[in-house]
Amino acid sequence: MTSEFEIIQKYFSRHANDVLLGVGDDGAVVQAVNDRDLVVTSDTLVSGTHFSPDVNPFTIGYKSVAVNLSDLAAMGAVPKYITLSITLPSVEETWVREFSKGIYSILDDHATTLIGGDTTRGDTLSITVTALGYVKSHMALRRDGACLGDDVWVSGFIGLGALGLLIQQGSLNYEDEYERVFLGRLHQPEPRIKLGQRLLGVANAAIDVSDGLIADAGHIAERSGVQIKIEYEDIPVHSAVTDTRSNKSIENCILGGGDDYELLFTARKEWEADIIKIGSDLRLPLTKIGKVSEGTGVVVTGDGAVKKDFQRGFDHFSKN
Amino acid sequence: MTSEFEIIQKYFSRHANDVLLGVGDDGAVVQAVNDRDLVVTSDTLVSGTHFSPDVNPFTIGYKSVAVNLSDLAAMGAVPKYITLSITLPSVEETWVREFSKGIYSILDDHATTLIGGDTTRGDTLSITVTALGYVKSHMALRRDGACLGDDVWVSGFIGLGALGLLIQQGSLNYEDEYERVFLGRLHQPEPRIKLGQRLLGVANAAIDVSDGLIADAGHIAERSGVQIKIEYEDIPVHSAVTDTRSNKSIENCILGGGDDYELLFTARKEWEADIIKIGSDLRLPLTKIGKVSEGTGVVVTGDGAVKKDFQRGFDHFSKN
Repeated sequence: MTSEFEIIQKYFSRHANDVLLGVGDDGAVVQAVNDRDLVVTSDTLVSGTHFSPDVNPFTIGYKSVAVNLSDLAAMGAVPKYITLSITLPSVEETWVREFSKGIYSILDDHATTLIGGDTTRGDTLSITVTALGYVKSHMALRRDGACLGDDVWVSGFIGLGALGLLIQQGSLNYEDEYERVFLGRLHQPEPRIKLGQRLLGVANAAIDVSDGLIADAGHIAERSGVQIKIEYEDIPVHSAVTDTRSNKSIENCILGGGDDYELLFTARKEWEADIIKIGSDLRLPLTKIGKVSEGTGVVVTGDGAVKKDFQRGFDHFSKN
Repeated sequence: MTSEFEIIQKYFSRHANDVLLGVGDDGAVVQAVNDRDLVVTSDTLVSGTHFSPDVNPFTIGYKSVAVNLSDLAAMGAVPKYITLSITLPSVEETWVREFSKGIYSILDDHATTLIGGDTTRGDTLSITVTALGYVKSHMALRRDGACLGDDVWVSGFIGLGALGLLIQQGSLNYEDEYERVFLGRLHQPEPRIKLGQRLLGVANAAIDVSDGLIADAGHIAERSGVQIKIEYEDIPVHSAVTDTRSNKSIENCILGGGDDYELLFTARKEWEADIIKIGSDLRLPLTKIGKVSEGTGVVVTGDGAVKKDFQRGFDHFSKN
């Protein structure tokens, strides 16, 4: 059966000469002038789908920008501008004020400017942000560049966003201190802009972990025509879950959970020392979790044996 | 009482140095390099608000691009790229196929490329298009440039989109031939890209008629700090309604109806002959309908007397 994702792909994949990288990556790269390419990315957050209707407006504003800046980070671009389109059931001043604070909070962190947009009335709160950034010509990181033999790396800790979601839903409990970390990741993820820029010329392929580690590794595998092998025990997790990582629900958070907004990238072995230095400069753990090999899909190994074999990424529309 | 539009304005108006023209015009203009500025515009169409849920998907696709290209036209920009974010309750192949045909139909007409976007699931069908274009540096047409003494011009016929909507709703009937014209305008408006480019250096201010003639004239008046006087009898209307233009529902279509996507612009009297030549070259009627004078808001005169005095444009959220 044709998946919903494939239907969209089927009717919306065309290429043009001046588009260096179009539909199907984190963003699009178009030839600008001189030594810069323009990178454009667009993401929609819908109430009830991407966030619970009772999430505070600051968080909604912050996150709707953060997920787009994260796409730029995954391409090694420097964010410059965003446009914001909001559909609202009604306009309440307190809500708009807090929402705008969230928007400007993250924009200011990244010297990025809101340049326009649109406000419309509709039954469901929905926010579309389009982010524009620049990257050195022909240097943008992409999903399709992974090479056989590359090491697979990931930044930060994986599964935090998903753990935050379980905590928010009341189905998981940790000490307050940890809950704050997990909820913080869910609500105010930090786009890895600096890391993306340091990876230019270093990484062969990159993506941000938004759909989940396996799903996003699957995107690299598919676009690059390779298999990604991940060693489960090497995936960096928060100390609060180190001992319970074999627990089924924790494993699901680590492998399937999204909303981490860390960067997953591949690089030749020769770059290992440089990558470790980058992590140290940025005070951001960078961990080698696997290898790029021949084949398709994503394979997770544990204790030396194949633990899970994902022949394709999680369908964006399915909940498996 | 503060209007909903003012609340949005209040919290989302900031400026930055490299933004030549930000929130509050048809689009944003940012300094690109060499002799071109980048123009960015974003518009959302929501099912039930901007189109009836039973409108065919080709039309929805076409129009969601058209309204954005019309914003670029109003700034004198040449469209280059769009991104497309769709929120869908479900993905049905026939729907997506027809929708994509509508999108590509108008993109091809304007040599514009779809470079990326996002598909998400949500209860209400909603489409956000962000369009990117280029305009010669510092030449973009804007809303705030109208000068005292300028003539006020409009392209094509006004009120067609609103008449189309009444026909679609079954509350108005015309001969088939006319109904096709009105419905065509409603469903497949033609962005006045060529006109916008010819008006660079000619018009002092411009806007596209999307919210309605009075509302859009009001935007120019407000941003330029002037009053716009419009002579009702001079507003160009389709021959099918010439005789009934004093009829209340027709008058509402002409003054208040949106969805025409013609260009409303102001220019110094000295440009009159050039403007007539532009209209003739483009085979598009360009009609002088009024004057820019001291004061605020929009005044419509008829038979030499003030007919209506609109001190401010229609509120985007209100239905007056």
